[in-house]
Amino acid sequence: MKHMPKSQTELAPLLVFGAHPDDIEFGCGGVIAKETQLGRAAHFVVCSRGEAGSHGSPRQRVAEAEKSAALVGATVEFIELDGDSHLEIRAAHAIKLAGIVRRIKPGIVLASSIVQNQHPDHWRVGCLIRDSARLARYGGVKELRKLLSHAIEQLLFYAVTPQAEPSDITPVLIDVSAPQIIAAWTAAMQAHACQTSVRRYVELQISRARVSGLRAGVDHAIALFPNDPLVLDSLAPLSRGARRF
Amino acid sequence: MKHMPKSQTELAPLLVFGAHPDDIEFGCGGVIAKETQLGRAAHFVVCSRGEAGSHGSPRQRVAEAEKSAALVGATVEFIELDGDSHLEIRAAHAIKLAGIVRRIKPGIVLASSIVQNQHPDHWRVGCLIRDSARLARYGGVKELRKLLSHAIEQLLFYAVTPQAEPSDITPVLIDVSAPQIIAAWTAAMQAHACQTSVRRYVELQISRARVSGLRAGVDHAIALFPNDPLVLDSLAPLSRGARRF
Amino acid sequence: MKHMPKSQTELAPLLVFGAHPDDIEFGCGGVIAKETQLGRAAHFVVCSRGEAGSHGSPRQRVAEAEKSAALVGATVEFIELDGDSHLEIRAAHAIKLAGIVRRIKPGIVLASSIVQNQHPDHWRVGCLIRDSARLARYGGVKELRKLLSHAIEQLLFYAVTPQAEPSDITPVLIDVSAPQIIAAWTAAMQAHACQTSVRRYVELQISRARVSGLRAGVDHAIALFPNDPLVLDSLAPLSRGARRF
Amino acid sequence: MKHMPKSQTELAPLLVFGAHPDDIEFGCGGVIAKETQLGRAAHFVVCSRGEAGSHGSPRQRVAEAEKSAALVGATVEFIELDGDSHLEIRAAHAIKLAGIVRRIKPGIVLASSIVQNQHPDHWRVGCLIRDSARLARYGGVKELRKLLSHAIEQLLFYAVTPQAEPSDITPVLIDVSAPQIIAAWTAAMQAHACQTSVRRYVELQISRARVSGLRAGVDHAIALFPNDPLVLDSLAPLSRGARRF
Amino acid sequence: MKHMPKSQTELAPLLVFGAHPDDIEFGCGGVIAKETQLGRAAHFVVCSRGEAGSHGSPRQRVAEAEKSAALVGATVEFIELDGDSHLEIRAAHAIKLAGIVRRIKPGIVLASSIVQNQHPDHWRVGCLIRDSARLARYGGVKELRKLLSHAIEQLLFYAVTPQAEPSDITPVLIDVSAPQIIAAWTAAMQAHACQTSVRRYVELQISRARVSGLRAGVDHAIALFPNDPLVLDSLAPLSRGARRF
Amino acid sequence: MKHMPKSQTELAPLLVFGAHPDDIEFGCGGVIAKETQLGRAAHFVVCSRGEAGSHGSPRQRVAEAEKSAALVGATVEFIELDGDSHLEIRAAHAIKLAGIVRRIKPGIVLASSIVQNQHPDHWRVGCLIRDSARLARYGGVKELRKLLSHAIEQLLFYAVTPQAEPSDITPVLIDVSAPQIIAAWTAAMQAHACQTSVRRYVELQISRARVSGLRAGVDHAIALFPNDPLVLDSLAPLSRGARRF
Repeated sequence: MKHMPKSQTELAPLLVFGAHPDDIEFGCGGVIAKETQLGRAAHFVVCSRGEAGSHGSPRQRVAEAEKSAALVGATVEFIELDGDSHLEIRAAHAIKLAGIVRRIKPGIVLASSIVQNQHPDHWRVGCLIRDSARLARYGGVKELRKLLSHAIEQLLFYAVTPQAEPSDITPVLIDVSAPQIIAAWTAAMQAHACQTSVRRYVELQISRARVSGLRAGVDHAIALFPNDPLVLDSLAPLSRGARRF
Repeated sequence: MKHMPKSQTELAPLLVFGAHPDDIEFGCGGVIAKETQLGRAAHFVVCSRGEAGSHGSPRQRVAEAEKSAALVGATVEFIELDGDSHLEIRAAHAIKLAGIVRRIKPGIVLASSIVQNQHPDHWRVGCLIRDSARLARYGGVKELRKLLSHAIEQLLFYAVTPQAEPSDITPVLIDVSAPQIIAAWTAAMQAHACQTSVRRYVELQISRARVSGLRAGVDHAIALFPNDPLVLDSLAPLSRGARRF
Repeated sequence: MKHMPKSQTELAPLLVFGAHPDDIEFGCGGVIAKETQLGRAAHFVVCSRGEAGSHGSPRQRVAEAEKSAALVGATVEFIELDGDSHLEIRAAHAIKLAGIVRRIKPGIVLASSIVQNQHPDHWRVGCLIRDSARLARYGGVKELRKLLSHAIEQLLFYAVTPQAEPSDITPVLIDVSAPQIIAAWTAAMQAHACQTSVRRYVELQISRARVSGLRAGVDHAIALFPNDPLVLDSLAPLSRGARRF
Repeated sequence: MKHMPKSQTELAPLLVFGAHPDDIEFGCGGVIAKETQLGRAAHFVVCSRGEAGSHGSPRQRVAEAEKSAALVGATVEFIELDGDSHLEIRAAHAIKLAGIVRRIKPGIVLASSIVQNQHPDHWRVGCLIRDSARLARYGGVKELRKLLSHAIEQLLFYAVTPQAEPSDITPVLIDVSAPQIIAAWTAAMQAHACQTSVRRYVELQISRARVSGLRAGVDHAIALFPNDPLVLDSLAPLSRGARRF
Repeated sequence: MKHMPKSQTELAPLLVFGAHPDDIEFGCGGVIAKETQLGRAAHFVVCSRGEAGSHGSPRQRVAEAEKSAALVGATVEFIELDGDSHLEIRAAHAIKLAGIVRRIKPGIVLASSIVQNQHPDHWRVGCLIRDSARLARYGGVKELRKLLSHAIEQLLFYAVTPQAEPSDITPVLIDVSAPQIIAAWTAAMQAHACQTSVRRYVELQISRARVSGLRAGVDHAIALFPNDPLVLDSLAPLSRGARRF
Repeated sequence: MKHMPKSQTELAPLLVFGAHPDDIEFGCGGVIAKETQLGRAAHFVVCSRGEAGSHGSPRQRVAEAEKSAALVGATVEFIELDGDSHLEIRAAHAIKLAGIVRRIKPGIVLASSIVQNQHPDHWRVGCLIRDSARLARYGGVKELRKLLSHAIEQLLFYAVTPQAEPSDITPVLIDVSAPQIIAAWTAAMQAHACQTSVRRYVELQISRARVSGLRAGVDHAIALFPNDPLVLDSLAPLSRGARRF
């Protein structure tokens, strides 16, 4: 019933899941850059090599993702589920992902949002991670017995596109205005050159962060969507609200 | 565009509005007790003397409210709007309330929720406060010119009853488990003897806090509902989530 | 187009589905106790032996569930789908479950809710039952041809935890205040000793029932969530509403 | 905390509020006809004389409403608030309406729905009645001291038009299929000749009831929307659901 | 970034998916009749032969569907996925359906709605089509490489029954009042004689269209639900709204 | 029941209401510029002189608004209701505004959105206009008898800020990408120099339009929110959807 002391929880690594090599950076790269600068370790798990995309070979996509993750200070691994654009909701996937949760032992987990009107793989990764974050906690799952069970503290969703923003969860806005953060984020997005050379992803994400930032009274902010209510010891963390206009 | 340094914001007083003498303590008394113990000043503004209730004279109600506020470490003042059960949404009320916001200069403001299926005065106080928190900021409101304009940082709603909980805002759960906090809250509720002697309000509130607490992995918690998205500098304050079951 | 005469419908057995050995009792045990005391037969179908849980062997879990069902006057059977924490949405499962619906011929069916932010098996059981309640009616499903097709009258969801309560369905509150009902329900929950010895499930459920009960003007009540609008012959059954506060 | 014995509650009169002379019959006339046939008294309170409508003088409208109410077995009275199309949400109105609630002592109250995208008077009547049903219960409202306080059991909303149906309340469908009920309802609607001669209101309402009826497995049904969760002693009243297609 | 010139887009064929032989005609047959009369080609893809229904052999169902499609001016093809009442959400299905999208090259696609409380196959077809409309666009999906990638312009959902209407999408109402359109639609529905001889489907659909029509100020209209916001060059297409009552 | 022939409807003037001198241009100035370029007359009604704002005198604000309206090709008039930041929902206001509707005889009306968590005057203007658009149609409203009753065709809401976007209405996105439209819109916003010199309104609006535009596959788009379902003669106007990402 007791929760871990804050200092320890806050140092727990950040674990971030994405369906494709560029989803994480497009959806929340600025947040990652900020957290790693603050000293938190971040690890990316990418669930395909982007092989169904219109542009870029899997080999290129992986190389870009590795370069991009490094630019925001994160490590990255690639796993195979069903392949790009072939992802299905399977218990075996959730269990496999729960194994990664047990291995990394994160405090906070990020995943693409569960809104279904977006790329078919995006919301499925979100749903699988939501399931896997529970499975990681259950002691009797036989495939996972070699790893200690682990309870994460919070699951947050990021939205790769505007329509992926859940309308039934109040967002939290993370201030990413510092020039070096914006620079790192932008560089990480541009590292996905196969994609950004043909579509205006960078401009989309920076415009979105600009709108959220102006709303929050800062230059740029990224909206994240908590899967569960926040638990707080006092009102202090609530002392800024997005109410500038 | 810059926000006030945290230390200063966090010391800003808490300003809490209630329609009737007992609403604040029933809805969020435990949070108040916790904040005042942490050193923050708290001031209650009660918008009637409860004169339309079935039990207790206005004089008794005021006396109980003064005793109750003291038990959670808050000061209290009574104002006249339209009278108990007669409250209307009027610009003059919002402006009057905005004047109080300018006078007290709070960082965080609490008010009863804006869900309309509850006591007619409860949601109207919530709506009036939401308006007044904006009006306090506008420099040209002529009735308010003698007071410096003031921008609050966050408005949070409390729910006096379960049906007053907004279903479209993700709550934050404030841990109020410490024995001395629960004791102070319970005493403050019981101080409203006219009400608690005839209806099981204390048991309702403690049961609600028990359900929220078990959900959050603590003994007791109180749900608050932010009017605007939280703005955070990092993920650290998100490192606890209500995901125990 | 005609519906069965009321007396016959009301005697139709209650069929209740749960993902794990303790879900039904935790979620709606008090309702079951009340119905069986009123003379209605109740049958539980449990879709795993709880083998992925942190506490208790499958053998213990089954023994506890049998004892628990008896305490609320119900019979119980165990079926195999994909195993605890491995459940998937498969047509074969829905058809198998539809076969049980055809065999038991219930009027009312209960299942865990379809809200996805809870144990991965809970909402899947809810979804599978919603599908199976339709399939049980369709005459041409070849796997089911040996059993007469059957149309249930109503499907109700129960919520094992607060976050499993659907926010888009108006609940109905069933009064379970009678001391012998609360006693039977509590005993049935405690019969799941592997679980209740390590987590405060009983307290969670009784606190939830207390909040619903106070809201309804009785001591304890359990919220159920109808899958489809109620059809009534008159306003008489509507003559009590949860409007005490 | 105890509720009135059922037999008494069920005989309590039905009190129905409408903004204009024809709203009640168009929105729920079939339900009224059914209830009065079952022996329940029904009383209509009409809050204007329809003087802002495009067709029919106030005198004609009143005469039509009196004839129409009689056709469904109800008594009717007219009150003055602000006049047709001039209605405002005022505490004085809610208190006046609460006085009527105290005088009639209904178990169930019906009012036009609170959905705001409809005739400006319709939703305001719904909101005022929701407030007045609470005020009728509070012992200290000074304007009402001459009348005993009264707690209604349930408030139900009817929808005069499809867009007035609340999307966030699960409806209950009342079976109004009996030929004599449909005949009485149709006659009552046609009695509002000023309106039905120029717009196809009767066809609209009968078509809506046909859709609801087919959904419910009967010929015609009318959807009502409970303001508060139903409280039930057992599952028996839930034994029919709208799940025919 | 440029969109195709209007004239070309508007001539692009209409592609309509249904789970069973009669779903399309019941859900939106009047819209199809109107579009084909206006010169647009329409092609139906039916994903089962209705073999799990209570009435009619697969051979009869197919014959009826062919006759029915002809009556509204459409061509029809039958495909095998998992069989009637056995449909599952599989990537292979979405890819297969995406292949049809690439082959037909539609501008607008229609599919049954994604609301889950309806026939298990209906919402799954809606979800699969939503996914397939994206997959059709991605250049690297290996199973689809023989077909040019194709981006549809809009996906619209139809609702076979009232409960299948999405409550979170604003509908568009298509005027189908012209006598020859209603006649063609009715004939197409009646061509499904196995179904319409035992259940009042035609009456249900015409009553629904009557309610939508009266709301829109015309005789009959059919509601469709756009998956994505409309993109318009000017306000001109918005110059009629459903605001007659 | 017949609707006006399209050509006539499409030429009907556009009537736009705003609470303050700059709301219309910030919220939907690009749409106005586009419509006037296409030959439609546009008339602005501004309900205060912005006298409660922190910057700019009423005289300056009016001068800026006149210049700004001219830049997007619209005429403008100022009316007095209760004054800036003092607006209340009053029947007299709705009737006064309905008189303007009758005088201008628009096809389409635009107003600030009805979302309550924004400037207190913004949503009240939206609500008043929604009411007034109905009152303009009712023949018997005595204050309006000198003007012919008028039925508008559609009411659309614009959102001055992101939080003012209604989450329960599917938006339509109007393409405003043409350089001369963006230029006119930007100039019109900058004409409100008192406001844009101190807050980054222009950047906020252009960033929002950029996000909507990228989503829609164009450079810039403005989201509008229809109060009522669209009524269409065919699917042709639906042939573009916001589904680029």
